[in-house]
Amino acid sequence: MPGFIGVHLGAGDHAESLVKEYTKLSNKACKKAFLMLESGASAVNACTEAIMILEDSPLTNAGLGSNCTWDGDVECDASVMDGHSLQQGAVGAVSGVKNPVCLARNLCMERSERLSMGLIPPSMLVGDSARAHAAKVGVELVPPEALVTAEQQRRYNKYKRRVTIAPEDQMEDTGAEWEPARLDTVGAVCVDFQGHVAAACSSGGIMLKSKGRVGQAGIPGFGCWAQDARGDIDAVAVSSSGCGEQLIRTFLVKETATMLEESICAVRGLKDALKLKYLESPLSLKEEEKLAGLIVLKYNPLKDIGEFIWGHTTKTMCVGLMSTAYSHPMSRVSLNTKPGEIAKVEGTAFKCRGKFN
Amino acid sequence: MPGFIGVHLGAGDHAESLVKEYTKLSNKACKKAFLMLESGASAVNACTEAIMILEDSPLTNAGLGSNCTWDGDVECDASVMDGHSLQQGAVGAVSGVKNPVCLARNLCMERSERLSMGLIPPSMLVGDSARAHAAKVGVELVPPEALVTAEQQRRYNKYKRRVTIAPEDQMEDTGAEWEPARLDTVGAVCVDFQGHVAAACSSGGIMLKSKGRVGQAGIPGFGCWAQDARGDIDAVAVSSSGCGEQLIRTFLVKETATMLEESICAVRGLKDALKLKYLESPLSLKEEEKLAGLIVLKYNPLKDIGEFIWGHTTKTMCVGLMSTAYSHPMSRVSLNTKPGEIAKVEGTAFKCRGKFN
Repeated sequence: MPGFIGVHLGAGDHAESLVKEYTKLSNKACKKAFLMLESGASAVNACTEAIMILEDSPLTNAGLGSNCTWDGDVECDASVMDGHSLQQGAVGAVSGVKNPVCLARNLCMERSERLSMGLIPPSMLVGDSARAHAAKVGVELVPPEALVTAEQQRRYNKYKRRVTIAPEDQMEDTGAEWEPARLDTVGAVCVDFQGHVAAACSSGGIMLKSKGRVGQAGIPGFGCWAQDARGDIDAVAVSSSGCGEQLIRTFLVKETATMLEESICAVRGLKDALKLKYLESPLSLKEEEKLAGLIVLKYNPLKDIGEFIWGHTTKTMCVGLMSTAYSHPMSRVSLNTKPGEIAKVEGTAFKCRGKFN
Repeated sequence: MPGFIGVHLGAGDHAESLVKEYTKLSNKACKKAFLMLESGASAVNACTEAIMILEDSPLTNAGLGSNCTWDGDVECDASVMDGHSLQQGAVGAVSGVKNPVCLARNLCMERSERLSMGLIPPSMLVGDSARAHAAKVGVELVPPEALVTAEQQRRYNKYKRRVTIAPEDQMEDTGAEWEPARLDTVGAVCVDFQGHVAAACSSGGIMLKSKGRVGQAGIPGFGCWAQDARGDIDAVAVSSSGCGEQLIRTFLVKETATMLEESICAVRGLKDALKLKYLESPLSLKEEEKLAGLIVLKYNPLKDIGEFIWGHTTKTMCVGLMSTAYSHPMSRVSLNTKPGEIAKVEGTAFKCRGKFN
């Protein structure tokens, strides 16, 4: 009777040819997290483990194989939230850390222990200092260039050349020749055997981003959110993907969590959030392309009734899940034919404690 | 008929002996910004100018004379929001930039210009890369150690010694002997002659913070918020001070902006926000000390009716303001005798366009 794990491999434009690979990877992450939940792991730790597997795959834009910065480096953002302690941990623009999500998890856990003399443990660390902290607390380091894959190097060379060589043609080039946009941040939401929830996410950010740029995935409350049930209010967990600057300005993750809490049905809550707080929000009126994807979880621990829902305004979104009600992980790529204009929302109900089995 | 500027020199525990100095500094910042508004400057630029004056003073915990990190450096956070374009700029953990707020303003303005080839200008830059960006765009650099004042060096030595030398006594030492806490982030809110609003803030963060730690002042939407009037909804601007991790988790700045928009009276809106979204919020239940301060502005450009209100849960908060209705800047230190328990809220109405004169 362990719990529930749901993951995403980003909202973006997943290549048709790679769907099998995405599904396999998503299944692997779900299965690993689920086995941990079965052994009594906390939601925070199971989430972290799932994200580590996604980071370690060159398929995703997180950890190994992330998009390169303008200078050709990999710099990662990641964050974790524990719905029980309500603590958050986030790292931004960190290079040379094999699993940025581990460092975020670490900060989240350190926040639970009060430091002496009124010192306040940070919820967010960035840049070289974040890497130094990783070394101090035993989070695995790698040479920064080890996270740049040959495939990403090739894409970097191609785009950098195009952007820098012909500045006078740039405005006419509408990007039609670009390969599928790799907005594919990864994320996870989880319920553990005690009914606590957690959420996490990790991202390499946008291709050719400025060095030092931090997107929503590296900021507490912007990349993910988790809050346990309290009184009549269900537990909720949210993890995001999409254009960081838009997700930051619209507070989409937190707005979605609030709407989920207030709505009877998670599908309705997520639909409303994507419509009212994103696509039609006065805060994103001036955006040319509105690209976001969310996975959300709403769970009532007393009734053991849960919903896992995904929604995206991008062409595709890849999601996976596993709970007691399913004997094996289920992953799929959700399709949407009008990127940036409408939100597609789908999902499933789940049970955590095996009453179905 | 220029507009309105309101500033704060932080919520914390301002030394009685320095009140005259604080008042003088606050007046200077207000006067400079107001003169700019009279010459037709935008709200964003007037805000930035006011903050620059506050950063340049060693009295405040921003720019020159900021609190030192655990390693004895100064690392600054700053952010700016333009209520007209709704663009944001933020810098986190940046060292060796004389006026961090200028760099934040720069990012905010660059966001208004769409880059070619779908490249998205960052709303947040951190660490050494932020400093490198400052060099590139002509924001003034200084040697990092130039921002460490002798006074801050003395405080750093004192606290660092106390924390590191006697670890076994740390839990009993309740901090009673500490000098007044320097949470005094600075901030500004502004209305310009076109009725556009803006907000900004800047902070050196907490004493002995980890290197690389970013607090609310360095994150878009957490340190400040500004949004022009639309339809029936008044323009609002908010700038914050206090414990960064608490302000981040509670989304206090944005929650306050929303409550201000929804309430008829700004005093009521700010009181409710500090009570419901901070002091009594489920998100800050476990905090030992709840320390925050906000300045807010609510403005109806059609009626030219504005309110400038400040509220704090700390012992003191220092604020200043200037508008057409006052012939000179007015600054004061607001007192509150129960830090962390109740919120004191005060303020004033203002006119922008000289109908009083």
